[in-house]
Amino acid sequence: MHFYEKLDAATNAADSLLCVGLDTDPTKLPAHLGTGTDAIILFNRAIVEATADLVQSYKLNLAFYESMGAEGYEVIRATLDAIPGHIVTIGDAKRGDIGNTSSMYAKAMFEDFGFDATTVAPYMGRDSVEPFLRYGKHGVFVLALTSNKGSKDFQYLNVDGDPLYKHVVRTLLGWNSENNLGLVVGATHPSELEEIRAMAGDVPLLIPGLGAQGGNVELSVRAGCTSDGMRAVFNSSRGILYASTGEDFAEHARAEALKLKEQINSCRGRS
Amino acid sequence: MHFYEKLDAATNAADSLLCVGLDTDPTKLPAHLGTGTDAIILFNRAIVEATADLVQSYKLNLAFYESMGAEGYEVIRATLDAIPGHIVTIGDAKRGDIGNTSSMYAKAMFEDFGFDATTVAPYMGRDSVEPFLRYGKHGVFVLALTSNKGSKDFQYLNVDGDPLYKHVVRTLLGWNSENNLGLVVGATHPSELEEIRAMAGDVPLLIPGLGAQGGNVELSVRAGCTSDGMRAVFNSSRGILYASTGEDFAEHARAEALKLKEQINSCRGRS
Repeated sequence: MHFYEKLDAATNAADSLLCVGLDTDPTKLPAHLGTGTDAIILFNRAIVEATADLVQSYKLNLAFYESMGAEGYEVIRATLDAIPGHIVTIGDAKRGDIGNTSSMYAKAMFEDFGFDATTVAPYMGRDSVEPFLRYGKHGVFVLALTSNKGSKDFQYLNVDGDPLYKHVVRTLLGWNSENNLGLVVGATHPSELEEIRAMAGDVPLLIPGLGAQGGNVELSVRAGCTSDGMRAVFNSSRGILYASTGEDFAEHARAEALKLKEQINSCRGRS
Repeated sequence: MHFYEKLDAATNAADSLLCVGLDTDPTKLPAHLGTGTDAIILFNRAIVEATADLVQSYKLNLAFYESMGAEGYEVIRATLDAIPGHIVTIGDAKRGDIGNTSSMYAKAMFEDFGFDATTVAPYMGRDSVEPFLRYGKHGVFVLALTSNKGSKDFQYLNVDGDPLYKHVVRTLLGWNSENNLGLVVGATHPSELEEIRAMAGDVPLLIPGLGAQGGNVELSVRAGCTSDGMRAVFNSSRGILYASTGEDFAEHARAEALKLKEQINSCRGRS
């Protein structure tokens, strides 16, 4: 199935725009799970089981798994195995290199791990992004305007009267011949998010920055969705994963995920 | 030892600015080595043994190893183990994420793998780069002007009369309080390389793009070094690794490395 179709189907199946970020920090696991690779897998599986009917997607940030060494690969695989097949999986890797090297990253993300989508950094330009886009059925979320403080350093630079991120968005939209592009836009910039949605038509937006990073749910949901309340991926990680560190962590994670899903839905326009 | 000191010492020890890129493609190994992880490790070790007295540094592009799955980790470790301790090791990963996530990438590169230096993508700004810079003894080469065709897409955008890459360079130089910053500048842009060297003082430049990518040795060596012919890292990968696919591959790799080292040295100004 094509990425946009899978995203829409998963959104409708759960009636949800929520993406749970499985950015599992081994130092924050509930004590009763123990430590090590097995504990992390147990934790991820429990979070997936407790939230799978509430989410449209799961996002794994590869930094958390890379820092576990070779075993991180096994944790990613075991986690992906636990995610029901109709739910979208996003490998958040922010890769990008010269063409032949980007091809190897694309292979790692889409063929070896089998993620439905990944994130890509734009700085190196077209030949660094195209090897990902060429996998027509997989989604490619390219960084446009990020949620962090450092987004002010380069992304707002004045390029012929427009901020850099707008040039990046405009250029990326021109590369979307396979209809599988997405854009990353932080929830911490609601008015820019609205502008980018207007530019991007029905291209999906991955919107991190709710919760710990301070993004406002109402503003970013109103700004980020298409007019029929679709094509947005609202990621939350820490607020859900670590809602409790007791034996009831999965229950608490479910409660937080449900709350955020409903909060998002209450602001979604539906046509 | 501080990164700049180690780079200078390694440059002087081999009288060389050459960096061999260990970007090993499993499909291009000499047939007599067989296939699989062991063959790749044998190949990398043989290349290191054949070239260690000719180089200042080795660079491993992580894309090649990530696409091997979990075993790629073991190949990286075994390869690093084979590199004599006085030679600089660069993990070419081009990572970059929000602050707490970049910290995990920095830990993976500097603590887990133990690379002397890494490459970082700049688009996400200061809090994405600083977790790397904070490891004061390790080097951090941030992408400024890359060697690929896609460098034209965003890096030359006109920002208040200057190309974007100059703004990026100027801003990065302001973050170099630990004196461990480096910049990536492609050999395919010799006149821009000269401008960046003038801006950067004695900050090391990692200069890919010789050989397969078409960079000119004489122009880029004259432009990229400091006035005393130091602080430049000239990377070549394919032209050395695959000089022969016969049983004599290591000998041929050595011959190519020696030729390029001497070509570079013949253009180095020494004061």
